[in-house]
Amino acid sequence: MHQRAIMCLERPAKLYPEKLAVIDAHHRMTYGEFAAGVNRLANGLGTAGVGRGDAVAVLCVNHHRYLQLYFACHALGAVIVPLNIRLMPPEIVYILNDSRTKLLFIDRPFLGHLETIRDGARHLDDVYYSDFDEVPEGLLPFTDLVKGQSDAFEPEPTADDDVMGYFYTGGTTGEPKGVMLTNRNLVSNAFHLQSMIHYGPDDRYLHIAPMFHLADAASIYALTMVGGVHVFGRAFEPKLTLELVQEHRVTMLILVPTMVNFVLAHADFGRYDLTSLRHFLYGASPMPVPLLRRAIEKIPCLPLQGYGMTEAAPLVSSLSGEDHRRGYEDPAMAWLLGTAGQPVPGVEMKIVNPEGREVNVGEAGEIIVRGPNIMKGYLNKPEATAEAIRNGWYHSGDVAIRNECGYFTIVDRMKDMIISGGENIYTTEVENVIMQFPGMLETTVVGVPDDQWGEVVRAFVVMKPHEAAGEAEIIEFCRQRLAHYKCPKAVEFLTELPKSGAGKILKRELRKAYWGDKQRQVN
Amino acid sequence: MHQRAIMCLERPAKLYPEKLAVIDAHHRMTYGEFAAGVNRLANGLGTAGVGRGDAVAVLCVNHHRYLQLYFACHALGAVIVPLNIRLMPPEIVYILNDSRTKLLFIDRPFLGHLETIRDGARHLDDVYYSDFDEVPEGLLPFTDLVKGQSDAFEPEPTADDDVMGYFYTGGTTGEPKGVMLTNRNLVSNAFHLQSMIHYGPDDRYLHIAPMFHLADAASIYALTMVGGVHVFGRAFEPKLTLELVQEHRVTMLILVPTMVNFVLAHADFGRYDLTSLRHFLYGASPMPVPLLRRAIEKIPCLPLQGYGMTEAAPLVSSLSGEDHRRGYEDPAMAWLLGTAGQPVPGVEMKIVNPEGREVNVGEAGEIIVRGPNIMKGYLNKPEATAEAIRNGWYHSGDVAIRNECGYFTIVDRMKDMIISGGENIYTTEVENVIMQFPGMLETTVVGVPDDQWGEVVRAFVVMKPHEAAGEAEIIEFCRQRLAHYKCPKAVEFLTELPKSGAGKILKRELRKAYWGDKQRQVN
Repeated sequence: MHQRAIMCLERPAKLYPEKLAVIDAHHRMTYGEFAAGVNRLANGLGTAGVGRGDAVAVLCVNHHRYLQLYFACHALGAVIVPLNIRLMPPEIVYILNDSRTKLLFIDRPFLGHLETIRDGARHLDDVYYSDFDEVPEGLLPFTDLVKGQSDAFEPEPTADDDVMGYFYTGGTTGEPKGVMLTNRNLVSNAFHLQSMIHYGPDDRYLHIAPMFHLADAASIYALTMVGGVHVFGRAFEPKLTLELVQEHRVTMLILVPTMVNFVLAHADFGRYDLTSLRHFLYGASPMPVPLLRRAIEKIPCLPLQGYGMTEAAPLVSSLSGEDHRRGYEDPAMAWLLGTAGQPVPGVEMKIVNPEGREVNVGEAGEIIVRGPNIMKGYLNKPEATAEAIRNGWYHSGDVAIRNECGYFTIVDRMKDMIISGGENIYTTEVENVIMQFPGMLETTVVGVPDDQWGEVVRAFVVMKPHEAAGEAEIIEFCRQRLAHYKCPKAVEFLTELPKSGAGKILKRELRKAYWGDKQRQVN
Repeated sequence: MHQRAIMCLERPAKLYPEKLAVIDAHHRMTYGEFAAGVNRLANGLGTAGVGRGDAVAVLCVNHHRYLQLYFACHALGAVIVPLNIRLMPPEIVYILNDSRTKLLFIDRPFLGHLETIRDGARHLDDVYYSDFDEVPEGLLPFTDLVKGQSDAFEPEPTADDDVMGYFYTGGTTGEPKGVMLTNRNLVSNAFHLQSMIHYGPDDRYLHIAPMFHLADAASIYALTMVGGVHVFGRAFEPKLTLELVQEHRVTMLILVPTMVNFVLAHADFGRYDLTSLRHFLYGASPMPVPLLRRAIEKIPCLPLQGYGMTEAAPLVSSLSGEDHRRGYEDPAMAWLLGTAGQPVPGVEMKIVNPEGREVNVGEAGEIIVRGPNIMKGYLNKPEATAEAIRNGWYHSGDVAIRNECGYFTIVDRMKDMIISGGENIYTTEVENVIMQFPGMLETTVVGVPDDQWGEVVRAFVVMKPHEAAGEAEIIEFCRQRLAHYKCPKAVEFLTELPKSGAGKILKRELRKAYWGDKQRQVN
């Protein structure tokens, strides 16, 4: 009862109901109006049969109804399941079944998935159309859910450790894992974030990175609790980002490095007034230093970096604006720009060897994390949970080195994972799909460096004797079954895969040609 | 294991051991040195027999050893008992016995109390001299405790809800009550405070308000966890305050309103350079608006107000710098300066009627508070705890009105308590002492307004037939037995006290002559 996610909305709704809360295309709402909408929605969801602990999935672009869904679920004690909008229907079906989702909210861009979803999702009662245009036949309108409902709602007295959201992430086994985040996780992270960002009531935050991802969603709580303004852009697009910042005098936003690159590269970049920005946040994948330097030079504010992971709700460490300034201006401090900063107050981080002992400065080891922000566990996956959280410490799988100034740099990844454009890709999941390709003997995929996406997926395949296939064919096969960002950008045909004596595929051998001997083996 | 008070020190000790942590007269220490000192002290305390849950009391002025004692106790899982330096020996003995204190640390100004303390404190093993001059005979030197001890110490794995401090406050029954604050209470408050103050590593905080009081001690955690610099002034003195701010480029400090008044009134005020100040904090008692206006005019930074209480660890609400600016500059917003602001994020506050229902805007009711910062309870006083915390809400006894803008104003106090110079005085405690005066028939004390102290104690006495006494005699009698701030400043002799039909003393009748019909019945 001490830390409830819904408290983040209760505060501004009570203290400044007249204050602007939302700018979303032609919609503007005060906190009073927004909270009333959340209450109507919570009442509507209740009428539709959603109760405490029930899952409600959201397959939407960014808009204020998404934000209302977050808080309405929290008020009900229901569990929100924000879906990655790039998933393909089989992946979505898996998640809806794993989470026993009862209701799904969907926007226009994803209607093509609907038939497969309805066929496969065993617990799904209804699908609501949450977009703002005409409601397609066969779908229930969002507006029906809230129509006639009361503006008042008494939030469920949820406990600090009650789960408020399943945030799906990939899995080394190939199955997505539902990260269970509690009231305490989300609220603690809001304070950790706040201690880095210092959101105030005059801040205007632009949701342009996708709201299903915690990199953006974390700011929901920190910004709302201080009564800041939420500005929405439906989906990332460089020109739209620039327009919205200028038009609404946006002060903060988060971008993944790939987005930063697109924004800077836009032909009209120099024509927009970005002076309202107080900071821009970046995270979710490593930032190439040349790109970071370019961003500092061209964007009229200092960046802030957040490093974290869904399991940590998500913030673990940050590199401050001041650190960026020093790293940019002082050649002796240039190394700062290649680091992931320092652990934020409230979160404990250690770099340990395989025996769990903290390593010395300058030595590489795995990052482990402890704090009130660490997830309760993975839904329905006790073994994966026990593997991830040992002795109270979350084992990140990221390999880092701490220097003598207390800053650490990510140098490698223990998990067989690729990060492309800010999205995590587990190689097993991709390999499992490729193996279904007719005539496939064996395959492995690795991440290779890419200027635009940081890393991209490269597949190595061995066909059965007398079988043949084209690169494009295999890629297309994957794109039918996997979110496109997970699919190989290139396929190499080999006669055999390099293997260890024990028969284990030597991915490192394949990576070598692309990564060379760089200290940093991740992008 | 998620929120431990010692984490606030572990972070800077690990991340920036070379960074300046302490400026205390001619002592300067980095975080590495300071933390090593804390570890030696923890080891020394352990050698002296202090273990998990044992109480260690501190009767000290402000210095870095006090700060080390806080963290050494936290590292050990021992309980620190910071003593109000103005208490008289009988009050101290009560607390040492109530808390079963094993070790006491004492500074020179309090040596006169020592004999009575040693005679009365039943669980006290040893007394250490923590001041910096020659160690008086019969006392153990602080330096002996740490000499030869290891710089390393593995903190006890305390739980979030383990008690880390007993912070004594007065009691309506006349007995001081030990407020039990846990790891989670102290760390949560650090984040609540941080969301208001935004301490950074470049901040320099001046401990000039007494460190036994949570108004100052709260900043210990918030400032340390971000690696700020602690500057110490032994005890409040207006000239010393001005000197230290100027000399060490102090950025933040907390003052109670009485201290603000003294500082502004100092003859040399205008000769000091105070431009390093980023904010000054005030709290602990209501701030007279004319004094606040004078402070805004003369001190070259905006104030921040914190409202709270020991039981809330302590922060509940704040009035921001921006609110002060608006209240000062805009006549239509001048009312802001008379309020206690708005509840901080993370803390729930309601104003309720005697039935526990939230009252409407504009109606007076009791402030009740809920959050991860609310104390575990009062030590050894389950009835008082049950009375204070009902249905999870702490009942403050402060009466307030919330306006239509969400700001609230303290208008009265339900508890029979007087606040003088930032110190809480429970009238029963004073009355109990006066009743011991020879020939006393009955007495009651009330708080009356005072320009310097906010409120002061005024006693009304009725002597037995044929008995007589002088005002000065009664005041001196009290000063032998009570901290001087609790003693009456004036005594009125009456032939009888005004009483209700049921025989209850009508304090309101006595107050009327001093408070009139003002809406605000507290200062």
